[in-house]
Amino acid sequence: MIKLYSFPGTISLAVHIALEEAGADYELVKVDFLTNEQRSPDYLAINPKSRVPALVTERGVLTEAPALMTYVAQAFPQAKLAPLDDPFAMAQVQAFNTYLCSAVHVSAAHRHRGYRWADDPVAIADMRRKAPLAVAEHFELIETEYLVGPWVMGGDYTICDPYLFTLTGWLPRDGVDMAQFPKVADHFARMGERPAVRKVLAQLAA
Amino acid sequence: MIKLYSFPGTISLAVHIALEEAGADYELVKVDFLTNEQRSPDYLAINPKSRVPALVTERGVLTEAPALMTYVAQAFPQAKLAPLDDPFAMAQVQAFNTYLCSAVHVSAAHRHRGYRWADDPVAIADMRRKAPLAVAEHFELIETEYLVGPWVMGGDYTICDPYLFTLTGWLPRDGVDMAQFPKVADHFARMGERPAVRKVLAQLAA
Ligand SMILES: N[C@@H](CCC(=O)N[C@@H](CS)C(=O)NCC(=O)O)C(=O)O
Ligand SMILES: N[C@@H](CCC(=O)N[C@@H](CS)C(=O)NCC(=O)O)C(=O)O
Repeated sequence: MIKLYSFPGTISLAVHIALEEAGADYELVKVDFLTNEQRSPDYLAINPKSRVPALVTERGVLTEAPALMTYVAQAFPQAKLAPLDDPFAMAQVQAFNTYLCSAVHVSAAHRHRGYRWADDPVAIADMRRKAPLAVAEHFELIETEYLVGPWVMGGDYTICDPYLFTLTGWLPRDGVDMAQFPKVADHFARMGERPAVRKVLAQLAA
Repeated sequence: MIKLYSFPGTISLAVHIALEEAGADYELVKVDFLTNEQRSPDYLAINPKSRVPALVTERGVLTEAPALMTYVAQAFPQAKLAPLDDPFAMAQVQAFNTYLCSAVHVSAAHRHRGYRWADDPVAIADMRRKAPLAVAEHFELIETEYLVGPWVMGGDYTICDPYLFTLTGWLPRDGVDMAQFPKVADHFARMGERPAVRKVLAQLAA
């Protein structure tokens, strides 16, 4: 059975929702960030990058949220979570998720993980100050250019949707007012009504 | 015909090489970073993110290097640049390229583009100082964990190879000694012998 290594409040939620939408048989394994378990030798043997999510499949370990999202779509084609056979449409899906990963997620990480890129306390503080502004700028672009509506890619629900939902869910804690982005806020609310999303959120709250 | 918007010394080189390896019919369009053309209204109409690469296809514009690499592999399947029909192997390819994009490229960008994440000159300077260390840490992981050899994924040349080659090529200017990573250095040299790579580099030098 597929195992998803994850921790609440992280990007692993996107993969968790995708697995649920796909009807996959999976087990959730908690990597306890409160005790820094992501840096333990046991976890490093699974993911030497010391991050979540990691997906353990019968053929081995996979990492990187965008790759896991596409994996779920490709391994469970009947769930129709991506336009698998259309290179152009698939590239739009990948581009959206890559932007979330390399721009939005990275900018958000500057609020609490600034030590990855600097050591000086002045630098850490300044990154923390700027992170909400950088995140808001990315969401402005998503709002005006990329979120077609009602789902990210238009009429079809795809692996872009749980990914966006997860990062949108960070906006309040990142100090960004979601109301500035009406399409994003609408998408967030619509996602919250999906049975798979409700089930996952209930599971995490339990 | 496909148009690749690019500038020498950027990550667009990876896509350029992939197009050449695929035998694609493409045109190279230079976005002049020396005059900040990436921020001009004309270019923003093509890519509102104000970055290269952008690939203009008959169906529209695509962005984000990992998405473009996969697009080339999928649009030119006869070139066999990725294990398209194997979800697990494909996810390994995507994971590698996503790591290059969201970790390696992002860490390297802190050397000259620190203003994306901070404003204080102390922060900018500290990011610039730390960037080579962060980049070296990523390459250490690539060397020990991910580069199978002779190609990234082992015996088969894939879209991971030109992507790694491009970022490895930045090491000297990033102040990182390539000799620390013998497998990476060997991969870099081997890439330089490929006819497609020679052709592309000659084209850019012309
Ligand atoms: N590029 C990776 C980033 C993963 C990542 O940064 N995950 C965070 C949680 S959202 C993490 O594990 N952080 C632990 C740490 O930094 O110690 C992906 O998209 O999967
Ligand atoms: N995530 C994007 C990043 C692209 C990117 O940052 N490109 C750089 C060149 S390597 C750029 O266009 N920089 C221009 C600027 O920052 O003004 C990708 O992988 O394509």
